[in-house]
Amino acid sequence: MAIITLTTDLGTTDWFVGSMKGVILGLNPEVSIVDITHDVPGDIRAGAFALLASYRCFPRQTVHLAVVDPGVGSDRAAIVARTADYFFVGPDNGVLSLALTQEKILEIHRVDSDVYFRKPVSNTFHGRDIFAPVAARLTQRILVDSLGKILTDFVRLDWPPPEVVDGVSRGQVIYIDRFGNAVTNMGEAAVREITETGGTPVLVLGGRQVGELKRFYQEAAKGQPLVLIGSSGFLEIAVNGGNAARALNLKIGSVVELRSRAG
Amino acid sequence: MAIITLTTDLGTTDWFVGSMKGVILGLNPEVSIVDITHDVPGDIRAGAFALLASYRCFPRQTVHLAVVDPGVGSDRAAIVARTADYFFVGPDNGVLSLALTQEKILEIHRVDSDVYFRKPVSNTFHGRDIFAPVAARLTQRILVDSLGKILTDFVRLDWPPPEVVDGVSRGQVIYIDRFGNAVTNMGEAAVREITETGGTPVLVLGGRQVGELKRFYQEAAKGQPLVLIGSSGFLEIAVNGGNAARALNLKIGSVVELRSRAG
Amino acid sequence: MAIITLTTDLGTTDWFVGSMKGVILGLNPEVSIVDITHDVPGDIRAGAFALLASYRCFPRQTVHLAVVDPGVGSDRAAIVARTADYFFVGPDNGVLSLALTQEKILEIHRVDSDVYFRKPVSNTFHGRDIFAPVAARLTQRILVDSLGKILTDFVRLDWPPPEVVDGVSRGQVIYIDRFGNAVTNMGEAAVREITETGGTPVLVLGGRQVGELKRFYQEAAKGQPLVLIGSSGFLEIAVNGGNAARALNLKIGSVVELRSRAG
Repeated sequence: MAIITLTTDLGTTDWFVGSMKGVILGLNPEVSIVDITHDVPGDIRAGAFALLASYRCFPRQTVHLAVVDPGVGSDRAAIVARTADYFFVGPDNGVLSLALTQEKILEIHRVDSDVYFRKPVSNTFHGRDIFAPVAARLTQRILVDSLGKILTDFVRLDWPPPEVVDGVSRGQVIYIDRFGNAVTNMGEAAVREITETGGTPVLVLGGRQVGELKRFYQEAAKGQPLVLIGSSGFLEIAVNGGNAARALNLKIGSVVELRSRAG
Repeated sequence: MAIITLTTDLGTTDWFVGSMKGVILGLNPEVSIVDITHDVPGDIRAGAFALLASYRCFPRQTVHLAVVDPGVGSDRAAIVARTADYFFVGPDNGVLSLALTQEKILEIHRVDSDVYFRKPVSNTFHGRDIFAPVAARLTQRILVDSLGKILTDFVRLDWPPPEVVDGVSRGQVIYIDRFGNAVTNMGEAAVREITETGGTPVLVLGGRQVGELKRFYQEAAKGQPLVLIGSSGFLEIAVNGGNAARALNLKIGSVVELRSRAG
Repeated sequence: MAIITLTTDLGTTDWFVGSMKGVILGLNPEVSIVDITHDVPGDIRAGAFALLASYRCFPRQTVHLAVVDPGVGSDRAAIVARTADYFFVGPDNGVLSLALTQEKILEIHRVDSDVYFRKPVSNTFHGRDIFAPVAARLTQRILVDSLGKILTDFVRLDWPPPEVVDGVSRGQVIYIDRFGNAVTNMGEAAVREITETGGTPVLVLGGRQVGELKRFYQEAAKGQPLVLIGSSGFLEIAVNGGNAARALNLKIGSVVELRSRAG
């Protein structure tokens, strides 16, 4: 059984996602289609992060399709990337970029040829008419270079990497999950930076120490903020039994520091 | 692999949809079950439209099951329709009617016989006890006329078709999607009515010209209203980067006109 | 095709559920994964009830996985129960208990051995790293006693059973569904208690008769409260065309009585 994952902002109240699945199953009835999310909480960046956080859970040869596509109908390209382990399909607007930078890329192609498209192609729903059929064909081992021109690069997100200055790691919130946990762009390296010199990591927001590094939520007192290595491998700010984004007024882009405890 | 689609207003927070899927898979473990929506945004009409907008994306022999059923337990009939390409199953309350009027109907039957029902039949959940097992049996090629009495017609929605008077097409909003786009019951014919005589189509609401016909959302200025042929083939009122229903105070049933631009 | 059901409070806006499905399909690509709900409306009790209300709709050998797990990372055990008809997997916090008390239990094991875990195990997402792979392995007929120590009991919910005093059944609301119907912990026995002595059952809230026993929603006048045997087999308080929980101020834990009509 081939697998296609879907990461979109199309929602589940309308007929959009069902239509895409119909198109896929019409081309390859043996595909298992797995929803990552259809309610990407935010913009292209949040979609890119949801894909980054989940794509490696799937077996090799999985086709990852991401349709967070505010520019549908305009001139942004559609791309297919073949990596050592997966296929990625989506608009070339950055939504695939966080995953692609982790992968060994074998080839990237623009989707120029309309040979596999569902016709007529709607100007407002490429998910159904372009991306779904191309993804389905990829599970049938079509040659990727039949899709269109080879590309040497892809669009990346405008997103600063975390910095380390004097043992302090400074990053930002990149995703807020449904529980209000604020995921940052800092990983275990930020922790090691401090623990390797014998320090105790603390979370600093707006210059104020607000919580310690814990292993799991309940290790903090009820209602207290903490920071931990989240399930996606990134530092995550949480409140035990509460909503950290609300309690600490965190938004996507909020600056976050990890320091060695003072005093 | 046979396919059954589900269009319901049962929601996804309770156990209802999962129960229906369990019943289906217990009868035919090889079925692919595809959710169209379980949060039909509105009434029977919205459910009928969601099915209309998506059912043709599925391969032939797909069984389309629609359970938007405010009259469950009362005396409304359950019906199965076999068309040239599909099966349709649901209450005879209009939810199937928009799709059925597009299809070449081969036979329609009331579901009278309880031979395929899950017993005991709950008075409040025919989706699980009547519709799900009947849909599963249809994937196993049961004879439709074993289900019950043949019918010569089905219940239609009380819903006026668009009118054309003096080159002006007048219709109404029939569906509002999660982005606030307001889908109308007018199609490309309303556009041709104007362009064939050299006119430029404009959207008129309450006597006021509010937007032009565009090909995709970003073709309008940011925040500006537009009208386009939506992905379901109907004229759709949108605001680039915004929520048209909210911005223009559109509701299901709101009257909408497409005219040739004045002046 | 093996079946795994998922009952969680992980939501569908983030990547969590998709990740679990990827892990399952990576181990057994032939599994049908069915969502019961990922938005358990409430706490462990609501999750336990959603599972109770749906698990019997699935064919024998189905693996029911429930991840409502506020104590993830702490010392609560993970358990697997094999019953005459099903497998149940989840944290030992009561979420499996309502279903398990209905089943003939053959064996229960703690999940001690990490041989089947996805490594490294996240401290905050056992759903993906412990429960999903264990559930997938159960579809491959691993020996349950290879998982860990045998247990003689499981954690139950702290939840009083309904009482019958002088022909009056007194129970409580245990679940409120998306329509606002308030499901109680009383079943048909409460009705029989009254009808067997020739009485007419009425619903009493706060000492006041508020509705009669009906067979389906529309049997009450529009806007009127009623009580009926719901699709899960329990007495359910509803308002025809309305939201009973809101109209009658019912919450989980609200006390409810079924009496013989006075006067």
